[in-house]
Amino acid sequence: MRGARELATPLGNEPRAGRAMGELRALDGGAVAIHDGRIVDVGPEGELATRYAATAELDARGGTLVPGFVDAHTHPVFATTREDEFELRTRGATYVEIAERGGGILSTVRGVREASRETLLARLGLHLERFLALGTTTVECKSGYGLTLDDEVKCLEVLAEARRTQPIELVPTFLGAHDFPLEFRTRKREYVDLVCERMLPRVAEAKLAEYCDVFTETIAFSLDESRRILERARSLGLGLRLHVDQLTPLGGAELAAELGAASADHLEHVSERGIEALRAAKVVPVLCPVVPLFLRQDKEAPGRRLIDAGLAVAISTDFNPGSCNLQSLPEVMSWAALRYRMSAAECLTAATLNAACSLGRGAEIGTLEVGKRADVVVLDAPNHRHLVYELGRSPVRAVVVRGRVAYSRV
Amino acid sequence: MRGARELATPLGNEPRAGRAMGELRALDGGAVAIHDGRIVDVGPEGELATRYAATAELDARGGTLVPGFVDAHTHPVFATTREDEFELRTRGATYVEIAERGGGILSTVRGVREASRETLLARLGLHLERFLALGTTTVECKSGYGLTLDDEVKCLEVLAEARRTQPIELVPTFLGAHDFPLEFRTRKREYVDLVCERMLPRVAEAKLAEYCDVFTETIAFSLDESRRILERARSLGLGLRLHVDQLTPLGGAELAAELGAASADHLEHVSERGIEALRAAKVVPVLCPVVPLFLRQDKEAPGRRLIDAGLAVAISTDFNPGSCNLQSLPEVMSWAALRYRMSAAECLTAATLNAACSLGRGAEIGTLEVGKRADVVVLDAPNHRHLVYELGRSPVRAVVVRGRVAYSRV
Repeated sequence: MRGARELATPLGNEPRAGRAMGELRALDGGAVAIHDGRIVDVGPEGELATRYAATAELDARGGTLVPGFVDAHTHPVFATTREDEFELRTRGATYVEIAERGGGILSTVRGVREASRETLLARLGLHLERFLALGTTTVECKSGYGLTLDDEVKCLEVLAEARRTQPIELVPTFLGAHDFPLEFRTRKREYVDLVCERMLPRVAEAKLAEYCDVFTETIAFSLDESRRILERARSLGLGLRLHVDQLTPLGGAELAAELGAASADHLEHVSERGIEALRAAKVVPVLCPVVPLFLRQDKEAPGRRLIDAGLAVAISTDFNPGSCNLQSLPEVMSWAALRYRMSAAECLTAATLNAACSLGRGAEIGTLEVGKRADVVVLDAPNHRHLVYELGRSPVRAVVVRGRVAYSRV
Repeated sequence: MRGARELATPLGNEPRAGRAMGELRALDGGAVAIHDGRIVDVGPEGELATRYAATAELDARGGTLVPGFVDAHTHPVFATTREDEFELRTRGATYVEIAERGGGILSTVRGVREASRETLLARLGLHLERFLALGTTTVECKSGYGLTLDDEVKCLEVLAEARRTQPIELVPTFLGAHDFPLEFRTRKREYVDLVCERMLPRVAEAKLAEYCDVFTETIAFSLDESRRILERARSLGLGLRLHVDQLTPLGGAELAAELGAASADHLEHVSERGIEALRAAKVVPVLCPVVPLFLRQDKEAPGRRLIDAGLAVAISTDFNPGSCNLQSLPEVMSWAALRYRMSAAECLTAATLNAACSLGRGAEIGTLEVGKRADVVVLDAPNHRHLVYELGRSPVRAVVVRGRVAYSRV
């Protein structure tokens, strides 16, 4: 890949924490040599040109090369949208009020239960096509809108099917504990039993998910319920991710640290004790900067504080039809800069290497370095700072996955 | 134009104020018949099909038809970008601090003065291409980065040239009073003389602008300086637009009302007296909801209050390289919904009919009605509420200008 005005990438296979998040390799006129889907060299274009005889060249036409974006928190398996709820909320209804009226997550659950595999797969395909066009080459995908054994399995099987048929790498997460379904609202213990004794073993046996996630919150799963589910998941070989401290300071961050989770997500209400616990346990905080804006909530995650405390922050879309109808990581980077006072370099590290590490893929993706998979984004911009500086437009001109052009704007 | 799931449009040639902003005509399966660049019929597809034998048909493929978007406040004539300043600001520098250091507007002025007409025209062409792809079919374009007679004329002539060579309708505004240039910092009265006695007569004589705008603000032009410039402009036949009450409550809204301006823009700090004055004088408030977010300022315009007070609000991008690097009116609609609690219908009215009226074009564009120019956007979405409900992605599939397909995503 040649013709770039700049190549910008974080470095290494491990999460970059604290001040190191702002340290990029930024190379004017940088180029990438690719062989068999892997990066074999990175350096000034002039040098690479003398070293390799390319069989095919992608011209970046004065743009910028950055690593493929990694979205570490999404809910893309759904069939119905919730624009009515969005409008209700702009008129003043709260997340909790909407949830208590049977709206919110449960309205999407109704849609997923009624939908066929084909419908879900077609809709997921549309979402993945949009992710790719926005530069996302690896995306964590949660179930969690089925909430019965069969419907959760249906969603995870749809993800497995999509994995085989399109270029983005999908990382499936089981989120059977996303909410209590209506039929279990007065029998919460029985639903936790169902998750632990029937869903998790089935998911683990069929290798339908790499991670297990729980929505740990006053309106969802308590700390004890969460711990029981997550310990069971861990014993079955699944990695752990948690939705924590989003709406209230329940202490979910501390639980994530106690359990050695791969990530602790949201963290709008995290305490100083929670921050210290995450740091000590080296849990990656996965922040979702647009969610409180979308939900019209005042409290935002202390992004700057987390970095200054020495954590390796990742940022994600939290794409879902209710609390964040957004698929663009460049847009998330802009809002992380604006709301958390993160630099462009910190935002890029957060949406590539750190997100990859939270998914156990730091050695495989997340940077432009020799030996890594050739997932590369060509930006229609003269430098990587335009990722944060431009709002409301996709700066992505082309996307290379495993060395092949998977998207090109023409 | 057929095959739409929904057609949604405000109605009429006059600004829609207060509650009427939320009243759309929304028609399931609506279609539009076009002849000679004009709308000749709007109605259910079945009815239109029996009435007309189309020579060409555009299939909306289950999307939504809305009027072409009208952006009533932009600064698109510039040569250099300001990503460094964006990053400085995320580290804590304020708008005023950056301006006082000779950054801000004046850094763009340096770039424009050094740029050739060809450079400016090429850059403007890129901006217009992006506006069109985002559904904007009419855009108000300000000068204001030249700040000498020759450089202001150069920018307005570049706009005139672009008008002839691309499909979007441009409405040129003279903004010689955007800031005091460095060489006049200690001779402000002389600069106002220059604007009044040399720039304005030249602009008016050569018909280079329809409107005159002034940045009325403590750090820019005082109320008296603004009044003098605007009265001179009015006497030369130009319409008036004002940047007012953006950073401080200076009383610019009252001045806009006193002068009978077409629009009063920004209004973050407008007073209740200012609101009443605008209402009585029927001035259109042109709000820029993303600007304070982009500038990291707490104070936002009282959008909901203005509508509830019975005003006909318009919304715009304020596209410029310093305080809002954003060209997407759909994105602006989302933020107007989120920050001002405007409904999707109010947002659509604000970004079409009301914006058109603020530009003196209410009888010509801004709605899908018989006799109006056939400027139509096809959304890749099942209803107009997706305009506010989707963030970070352009929902625009195709754009028709004067009856011809000017943009299509394929």
